[in-house]
This record gives sequence, C-alpha cells and structure tokens, in this order.
Amino acid sequence: MGTKNSVMLLTIDVGNTRIKAAVFEQNRLVELSVFTKEAFLTETNFILNKFPKIEKLVVASVGNVEKELFLSLKNKAEIHFITRESRFPFTNLYSTPTTLGIDRMVLASGAVMQFPNQNRLVIDMGTCITYDFIDENDNYLGGAISPGIRLRYESLHQHTAKLPLLTKNYPESFIGNSTQESIHSGVINGVASEIDGFIELYKTQYAKFIIILTGGDAEFLAIRLKNTIFANSNFLLESLNQTFQYNQND
Amino acid sequence: MGTKNSVMLLTIDVGNTRIKAAVFEQNRLVELSVFTKEAFLTETNFILNKFPKIEKLVVASVGNVEKELFLSLKNKAEIHFITRESRFPFTNLYSTPTTLGIDRMVLASGAVMQFPNQNRLVIDMGTCITYDFIDENDNYLGGAISPGIRLRYESLHQHTAKLPLLTKNYPESFIGNSTQESIHSGVINGVASEIDGFIELYKTQYAKFIIILTGGDAEFLAIRLKNTIFANSNFLLESLNQTFQYNQND
Repeated sequence: MGTKNSVMLLTIDVGNTRIKAAVFEQNRLVELSVFTKEAFLTETNFILNKFPKIEKLVVASVGNVEKELFLSLKNKAEIHFITRESRFPFTNLYSTPTTLGIDRMVLASGAVMQFPNQNRLVIDMGTCITYDFIDENDNYLGGAISPGIRLRYESLHQHTAKLPLLTKNYPESFIGNSTQESIHSGVINGVASEIDGFIELYKTQYAKFIIILTGGDAEFLAIRLKNTIFANSNFLLESLNQTFQYNQND
Repeated sequence: MGTKNSVMLLTIDVGNTRIKAAVFEQNRLVELSVFTKEAFLTETNFILNKFPKIEKLVVASVGNVEKELFLSLKNKAEIHFITRESRFPFTNLYSTPTTLGIDRMVLASGAVMQFPNQNRLVIDMGTCITYDFIDENDNYLGGAISPGIRLRYESLHQHTAKLPLLTKNYPESFIGNSTQESIHSGVINGVASEIDGFIELYKTQYAKFIIILTGGDAEFLAIRLKNTIFANSNFLLESLNQTFQYNQND
C-alpha cells in the first residue's frame, strides 16, 4: 500500500448526525469509517493505531466543533481545521457568506478542482439535501436545502399520532396500497421528483452542467433519477482532502 | 341566513396539529374556525352559542380522540363520530384498511360524491401531504404520504446545529443565495416538484383524472404548480358534511 515514504492523512467530516472519516494516501481513499459522535475518540484512536503513517488530521464540521475533543489527539497527529477562513478555489457570491455551511464550501471546492472549467451542480444527500451551483467561471451562486430521506421518515412519525417510523425502502408502486407503502412512495418518489425538478430548473438557465450526487443516500437514490449523474458517496471526504492540499500550496 | 326551519351542523376535523371546525347550513359553509386542541372546549362552546340552530356535531379525528372531551358537549348537540365503521361511497382496496387514516377516507368520500364517474386524485396539504386516488369505478387504490411544508421547515431546524426555523415564504429564485433563501427554495420548490412529479406518474397510468388540492397550504402552493388543479382548502370539512349526510340515508 503506497511507497515507503508516503504520508497518510485522516479526513474527518463532522455532520449533523454522524461522523465520517477517511484515510487518504495521496489522493487514494484507503479506509472509510462512519460512526456516532459518542464513538469519536475510540474510533479515531483505532484508525490512528491501525495506520501509524497518518501524520495529519483534516477536520470540517457543520456543527459546533468541540475543539477540545480534537486537541486530545494533538500528540498523535497535526490537526488542521478547514473553516470559513481557509482558502477556497471559488468566488463566493452568497449574500450571507458567514452562514454558508462548511460542508457546502468543501463540496464546491471539490467540484471546482475535480471538474474544472464547467458549470457544476452538487447534490449532497445527507441529513439534509443540499444543492450547490458553481458556474464555469468558478462563481459559487448558492442553491437549496431540504430535509433528507431519514428526516422525512422521522418527521412523519414524530409529528403525527399514528404513522410508524420506517427505514428507507423503494416503494413497490407510486400508488402505495398500505400505510407503509404510502410512506415509502411519498418519501422516495418525493425526493426523486424534487431532485429531477431542481435539475430541470437549472436546465432552464444553463445549457450544460455536470451533476455530482453525493452523501449517504446517493447510491440508493441514483437509480431512481431521470438524469444521468455522477454518483460518488465519498465526494465530500475526497473534497476535504483536496481542499487541504489546496491550502498547503499557499 | 337560510330558512327558519333549516338545521345547522358543526363539522370538526381533529388533525395532527390543529382542529378545524365549520358550521354548515345544508351544503353551505357558514363559518370556519381553526384552533389548537387546548382551545377546543372554549372555541366549540363559542360556536354553539353563536349558532343556536346547530343540532349536530360531526367529528373525524386522525389522532387519538378524547371522546370524553366531546361528551361534555352532549347536552348541547347530538354528537356523531365518522369512523372506519361508517359507510363510505367507495370500495376500499387498501391492503391495510384498518390503518387508513379517517381523514383520507373522508377526502375520498367527498371526491366520489362531488366528482362522480371519473378518476380523482386528492392532494391534502396539511401536517402531512397525502395523495389519494379513487378511480372512476369508485375503487379507492391508495396513494402516498410525505411531510407537509411546515414539517419540512421544522425538521431542518430541529435536526441540524445551525439552520434557523423559518415561516413559509416563496423563494426569490431556485438558486437561493443565502441560507434563508436556500431553505425556502428547498422546501417550496421541493414540494412543488413532488406534487408535479406525482401528477406525472398518475398520467402514465390514467389518461384523465381530476386533481383536487386541499388543506391549509393548498392556496399558497397552487400557483406554483404546472398542472391545472381544483384548489379548495375546505374540501375535507365539506366532505365530512357530505359523508355524514350519506350515512343518514341508510
């Protein structure tokens, strides 16, 4: 696995629900872990022990990062936080740049670096579904935020007296003939129509753009979409690695 | 208002979030009230005092009805509950008929009675968005359930560290250029695309059907839809009145 002197790097994406971590050797993803916030130290130490060549931790967090937690790992690796103050390879045209989630900024960076000189639409299917558009001149324009698949299932259960909590599943038909099938149809067909609908809206304004679908539900949903998309559930972690490299080249 | 001898009826729809009540004189809606469950007795007594000609209460509840609460009104009016055991003017082909929400059954009844001999798609935009299809032979086939507009805004706020809770508003552009605009775009364009998408799915299977849009968000959203629809935010209460009449004609 790699040359003797190659440096390894551990990227950590602290999301709203879970933490995803990936070990990179140059641009190659060597190992991927997904865990809860409670398991953070145990899991991170396990990875660091398994890959002693890891010299750096690169962290992006959409939540309120407990920096103290990361600092307890300081003697094992250098810790780098990607924040709004980091360098990004795009011009941010958001009218409220200080509220733009760091996850969306990292995704936009990855889109610009992996797909240069073209319009890009990034769709991240995590706790939320985020849509981000970066035009061919590397202007970040904004996008949209809606509830992710799990949030939709949960909200139906939590805010009604009688609907059950289901785990995601493809509906048998768009006409659900039971309560469970009605919920699967509403959530899954609803999300698919939403994504197809946004792509159609972008088509009214941009003749050509690449569509990058990422996040935990990307592969589950990709086959239900009308449009051809580039599905890569690890795009955020890859982008985090690239954003870090970009900042090193100062 | 009406003839001297006309009887008035108070329909009460106990939803997941709010209670809606309407006074009917024959088939004419005379007064409409929307209130919380906590305000139920105060509001109902206010309506009964204002319209002494009300002789009957007709109640449908998707939640766990506290029958005791209603029974305290027993000396003021006859109380009739529309339940799964009532008569309905359609054949229920749902594979789990005992879990079909009473609200969806009442909507289906209204669709059959108000729009006879045709295919009907009823879309109710309340706490949840429910889709119900009753074909021209009066077979109830089922549909779908997804989170309503308010639920989507709430879930984004409740399940993320940093997203604000917003009240519904039309997005300025589908490319939201701020966090607030991104959320409005995600929720409102998402719901509009979902509804348009379901209508397209039904079109693949049924050449012709009427679309009835109802519920608290019906008028807000109707103007964002591609398809022509029949929007009537009081369709459930009207259907409740009609379902009661249908049961009286035993």
